[in-house]
Amino acid sequence: MLSKARIKYIKSLQVKKYRQSEQRFVVEGAKSVLELLGSDFVTHTVIGTQEFIDSYQPILSGYAGEIVEVKGSVLSDLGEFRTNDSALAIAQMKPNISLHVNPDEFALMLDDLRDPGNLGTIIRVADWYGISKVIASPDTTELYNPKVLHASMGSFTRVAVYYTELTNYLQVAAVPILGTFLDGENVHTMDRGKGGIIIIGNEARGISERVEKLVTRRVTIPRFGQAESLNAAVATAIICDNLRRGK
Amino acid sequence: MLSKARIKYIKSLQVKKYRQSEQRFVVEGAKSVLELLGSDFVTHTVIGTQEFIDSYQPILSGYAGEIVEVKGSVLSDLGEFRTNDSALAIAQMKPNISLHVNPDEFALMLDDLRDPGNLGTIIRVADWYGISKVIASPDTTELYNPKVLHASMGSFTRVAVYYTELTNYLQVAAVPILGTFLDGENVHTMDRGKGGIIIIGNEARGISERVEKLVTRRVTIPRFGQAESLNAAVATAIICDNLRRGK
Repeated sequence: MLSKARIKYIKSLQVKKYRQSEQRFVVEGAKSVLELLGSDFVTHTVIGTQEFIDSYQPILSGYAGEIVEVKGSVLSDLGEFRTNDSALAIAQMKPNISLHVNPDEFALMLDDLRDPGNLGTIIRVADWYGISKVIASPDTTELYNPKVLHASMGSFTRVAVYYTELTNYLQVAAVPILGTFLDGENVHTMDRGKGGIIIIGNEARGISERVEKLVTRRVTIPRFGQAESLNAAVATAIICDNLRRGK
Repeated sequence: MLSKARIKYIKSLQVKKYRQSEQRFVVEGAKSVLELLGSDFVTHTVIGTQEFIDSYQPILSGYAGEIVEVKGSVLSDLGEFRTNDSALAIAQMKPNISLHVNPDEFALMLDDLRDPGNLGTIIRVADWYGISKVIASPDTTELYNPKVLHASMGSFTRVAVYYTELTNYLQVAAVPILGTFLDGENVHTMDRGKGGIIIIGNEARGISERVEKLVTRRVTIPRFGQAESLNAAVATAIICDNLRRGK
């Protein structure tokens, strides 16, 4: 059972201001909760239906924190997503720790990416392509937004996001800095290299001028039709797929 | 000026039931409205701010329908998107006309795709890669949903969508039928061919069994990390990028 005060507390974590002050966030859905428990995040509480708790007893037995059993109808009212009727967890945010990009790895950089669905999808793409580091501008959407976590499909547990001022970061980065523009090298035929930072621009404005000045390789995704541009997460995936493929 | 009854009518078109009975839909935002006016859709009414009407006078002078000038605050209250404060149009739905896929062209097929954002993004991807035909199952999200049109960024004017029962359609299609699975040919190295139907599955369940039985080429997007799957629109884009590239 959950007290009214507890329900109110959990719901308050849907709001960024309260997440920030508590340094806690909510993970929704069975798959994401299981990925959370298998990660290096600290989980404080798991709230699940009897069916969830019974089904995943082997995994839950390795978890030392609190487990609360509730009905599905209670769960679907607790989080952001009404479709969640199996499990939810409260976890501890990680501190904003600096990430260093090595010359033999690719990392992503987000220049004021605003859409939570895009951010989550990009984290999922990074995870698919074995990219574990994302550098984000301070104005990029917050990682712990429920829509971001949902779209990441559990990949937020394997991809680290570091929020920092981008130009300062890039000025001391000793790796190739790739940005997607209309007048760059063809990503289908360019020499791919072994690593670097791939910059993804804002959904409406693209890559900002001050960041563009620091780009060392301008890349273009060839177009065969008439759309003016591609969605940010789609463009990220195409770039990653091309950089990862064999010759 | 718009009467209260007119405002009510336009708002009613946000609901699928009313769109269907009226066979009309709403297009929001300056870019999408301009693309609509340049397309073969029949536009009944353009509603815009003075600034929009003045800025695009040359384009609007070629449009014979009704133009209504309103304040930005009226506009942002009229549609699905509060951020729209420049223009909106009411257009006629197209009849659901059968699309034939030729052996030398690629087309997309959507097997119960449900998320409006995904559908719009997939239409935008199709437009980028010069794919002009999409075949969709009857349970796929409706094309004229405001979120679909918004995510398509105007590409809905150049990509035709035909809703039909998929298995009947595929049984008489004399072209390769491609589906993405975990155990297929590597899309990076496979012989790409010149055309065919690319099937995109439901977000949660993937491609349905009855459609899977009709697939003639199983394709796999190589994975380099740990995510279990990719977002439907992202996977579509990667397949299209690979099929379109030179050897």
